[in-house]
Amino acid sequence: MCQLLGMNCNVPTDICFSFEGFSQRGGGTDEHKDGWGISFFEGKGCRTFMDIQPAAESVISDLVKHYPIKSENVIAHIRKASMGAIKLENTHPFIRELWGEYWVFAHNGDLLNFHPLLSGCFVPVGSTDSELAFCVILEHLKLHFENKPSLTALCQTFKQKADEISQFGSFNFLLSNGEFLIAHCSTDLYYLIRQHPFTNAQLKDLDMEINFNELTTSNDRVAVIATQPLTTNEEWQKFHSGQCLVFKNGEVLKKY
Amino acid sequence: MCQLLGMNCNVPTDICFSFEGFSQRGGGTDEHKDGWGISFFEGKGCRTFMDIQPAAESVISDLVKHYPIKSENVIAHIRKASMGAIKLENTHPFIRELWGEYWVFAHNGDLLNFHPLLSGCFVPVGSTDSELAFCVILEHLKLHFENKPSLTALCQTFKQKADEISQFGSFNFLLSNGEFLIAHCSTDLYYLIRQHPFTNAQLKDLDMEINFNELTTSNDRVAVIATQPLTTNEEWQKFHSGQCLVFKNGEVLKKY
Repeated sequence: MCQLLGMNCNVPTDICFSFEGFSQRGGGTDEHKDGWGISFFEGKGCRTFMDIQPAAESVISDLVKHYPIKSENVIAHIRKASMGAIKLENTHPFIRELWGEYWVFAHNGDLLNFHPLLSGCFVPVGSTDSELAFCVILEHLKLHFENKPSLTALCQTFKQKADEISQFGSFNFLLSNGEFLIAHCSTDLYYLIRQHPFTNAQLKDLDMEINFNELTTSNDRVAVIATQPLTTNEEWQKFHSGQCLVFKNGEVLKKY
Repeated sequence: MCQLLGMNCNVPTDICFSFEGFSQRGGGTDEHKDGWGISFFEGKGCRTFMDIQPAAESVISDLVKHYPIKSENVIAHIRKASMGAIKLENTHPFIRELWGEYWVFAHNGDLLNFHPLLSGCFVPVGSTDSELAFCVILEHLKLHFENKPSLTALCQTFKQKADEISQFGSFNFLLSNGEFLIAHCSTDLYYLIRQHPFTNAQLKDLDMEINFNELTTSNDRVAVIATQPLTTNEEWQKFHSGQCLVFKNGEVLKKY
């Protein structure tokens, strides 16, 4: 299996603190050492850092931990390979363009006997069930909507396909187009919203604490989503199985 | 304008030496300081580092200079913005998936009054003429070939579209799918092939020398392509205007 980390904010925010803890689980405090990746949206642009080295040891993850990149939507993944060899093309997040926007996707779980037919709009490069599921979702959206629809129409159409795919196994995933972040839970996914009044946070995987009060303004709002809570002294909300939340500007905009 | 750097090899090779010199032109020895990017193919996978900071100063380009990533196909770009603001979405290289492969593209030049109609297979995210031209080329290939054709068929179809686009201005570019690297010249593009017997190379933009003889085996072969020669003591071949070379395994496979 793997672990997911997502962040959605109302102002560009760096993810250094959360990623510092999360990346420890990639070969340090946990076994997800078969590569990692992180995508940052900056406006319409998106950049991804990835590596097949363990996140806890990678020179590139070290850069990500210490070089603050401000973003409103971030998706990260640490991998424990189940389907697909430890190769760069099997490393999450996956990225495709749809309707002139980049879409980023990372998945935790296994889909069994999942062999959908694709029309050719989006074709997997690697051999994971995850990238295949991402292609299926994007194709479904593209065939339904020639141009980008309203968020409500998009989410309804999207949720229907996510439910369908969920029947093949566990399908926890994060998806973003840089405007909103969709989080879907089959088995394990938690979130919290940090907002005024900000407090201290203590990482679970590292002896490290931060006082968000010193780093924020009273208008800032940040949603953090993770497979397992990242901090010990904050109240993380557990997703229900089958639940899909849409985050925008650091808050839950829609629930399905 | 901008500058291009490409590398195509018969064994995975790092580009640290060439990129060290090239990145100096991004705000150091030359004016291309409006961002930079570099894509490395590793097998079918591809990872890109990019930044809107000048390549000569960027923390991320510093990592790329000193952390050897072994790749058979690399495309790098330093930008001097002409069309499109200094934003991440306008930073080269651009990446799309076609026929289950990643395709990477970087361009140097300006296309004027270039307003092609697109069918929607590939839509630009940013506002550069370069990304638009890339989308036009990929759409042309996709509409011609449902599946990946032979290299000869692909190149012929491709060259026809590149010639068409070249009529709108200068269209120097590098394109790769990780298997081969296509270099097209309108105005400025040079290349050299490094192979046994290897010698010393002296950078033009930095007081730095390397003895490739100590770092290679007699079977290694590396083609380096650049807008302007990167070294002072090697013989760089100038492309003709309108010429298109296909590099594979570190040598010129086809000329158009």
